[in-house]
Amino acid sequence: MNHSSAEAEPETIEPLRYLKGDAAAIETELLRDYKFGQQQLIELWGQASAVAITKAYPLSALSKKQPTVLVICGPDQNGSIGLVCARHLRIFDYEPTIYHPKRSSHSLHQDFTIQCEKMDIPSLSYLPTEQVQLINDAYNLVIDAMLGLEADSSNIKEPYSGILVTLKQIKIPIVSVDVPSWDAEEPSQDGINPEVLISLMAPKKCALNFSGKHFLAGRFLPYDIQKKYELNLPDYAGTDCLLEL
Amino acid sequence: MNHSSAEAEPETIEPLRYLKGDAAAIETELLRDYKFGQQQLIELWGQASAVAITKAYPLSALSKKQPTVLVICGPDQNGSIGLVCARHLRIFDYEPTIYHPKRSSHSLHQDFTIQCEKMDIPSLSYLPTEQVQLINDAYNLVIDAMLGLEADSSNIKEPYSGILVTLKQIKIPIVSVDVPSWDAEEPSQDGINPEVLISLMAPKKCALNFSGKHFLAGRFLPYDIQKKYELNLPDYAGTDCLLEL
Repeated sequence: MNHSSAEAEPETIEPLRYLKGDAAAIETELLRDYKFGQQQLIELWGQASAVAITKAYPLSALSKKQPTVLVICGPDQNGSIGLVCARHLRIFDYEPTIYHPKRSSHSLHQDFTIQCEKMDIPSLSYLPTEQVQLINDAYNLVIDAMLGLEADSSNIKEPYSGILVTLKQIKIPIVSVDVPSWDAEEPSQDGINPEVLISLMAPKKCALNFSGKHFLAGRFLPYDIQKKYELNLPDYAGTDCLLEL
Repeated sequence: MNHSSAEAEPETIEPLRYLKGDAAAIETELLRDYKFGQQQLIELWGQASAVAITKAYPLSALSKKQPTVLVICGPDQNGSIGLVCARHLRIFDYEPTIYHPKRSSHSLHQDFTIQCEKMDIPSLSYLPTEQVQLINDAYNLVIDAMLGLEADSSNIKEPYSGILVTLKQIKIPIVSVDVPSWDAEEPSQDGINPEVLISLMAPKKCALNFSGKHFLAGRFLPYDIQKKYELNLPDYAGTDCLLEL
């Protein structure tokens, strides 16, 4: 139960809000006014993403003998979340492999990378784009942590445009972190087709017609922010860090 | 299941290790070699501590009408963990109040303080030490996040020495974070007597004869560290961030 609602007037239940440009504004406010740190937010988001993946694909339900997962990480924050997610998946006894084609020069991103390396999480030096079957055979699923809200879907550059072409051909399920690597505002016909979407903080506009399994993760948003942006988040149960929408 | 053990020789189960000076060495190694950040570790520890408190004292089992909790935060890392714990307790619908007599000048500690203030978590300006009954009446429990491993129990200074005298007189349960605010190596006869202890990463020597409810929290330690320090941690279940010892 949201505490602030307990004191409010009897209320009609407002629908969950799907964010457009506001997602960036919320994040700015969290960092600037609420004094959250990027490292802290990325850790919470990556951890919750890993928990969501264990819910959608429990170890016992994986089709392959080894609990392998390919985590494709982009150069920015979405990629950092993917790195944290991979590390927690490893703690949860999955066998993540990272594909991380462009390393960021941001020290936080580099630290998250080293944390994965020091956990002996392997990293691919290239993705076998010509032989999609290799990916289907090697992994149970692919985590798309490539491009976040900041990406411009009409102008996705290499290597990500090539990876997206590959992801459109693979047969194993795709899990997208926050936004599928397509446009955050309008779902694209050309985009990849994830089976699972993990929305962070609040769902984004592009997820309005998403028909797969949809999780909301990142249960830490201050009530004032939830109110200001009229997020109308559903209640999380117990101490769960995520819920299924 | 610990993944590395799957490949190891058939093994006898070694007893869980209770750390002496090694706790500080592990933390140094995590920060220096594994490139974890303090903000990240404190967030994980504080979050797991809050979850442990919900297990030991579920909302439905609290004796008072309001789910009030007093969180006493020290000036250093243990206090920062207490601040994060209070914030997550608020998210879990408890009503924490912070008592934080000495603010640190460390910017990380200040940021964690602001995060609590911005969540409208009240803060006491003084603790009614002369009227212990006021504390018994106002709160369901007290979280002791005052002094960590770095504290020298033979030389605890004001205001903490006075607070400890008060805590020895209260009737409501005490939950200690990482180490009760007594010596980490030898349990002290003069110390406070927590009902619950939340050991972070690994239990400390002082907890060897602890007879209350004992949680181990902070499930993120790289396997190489666990091995190097021969921690022999028990297996956490599922995606649980803690276990009861």
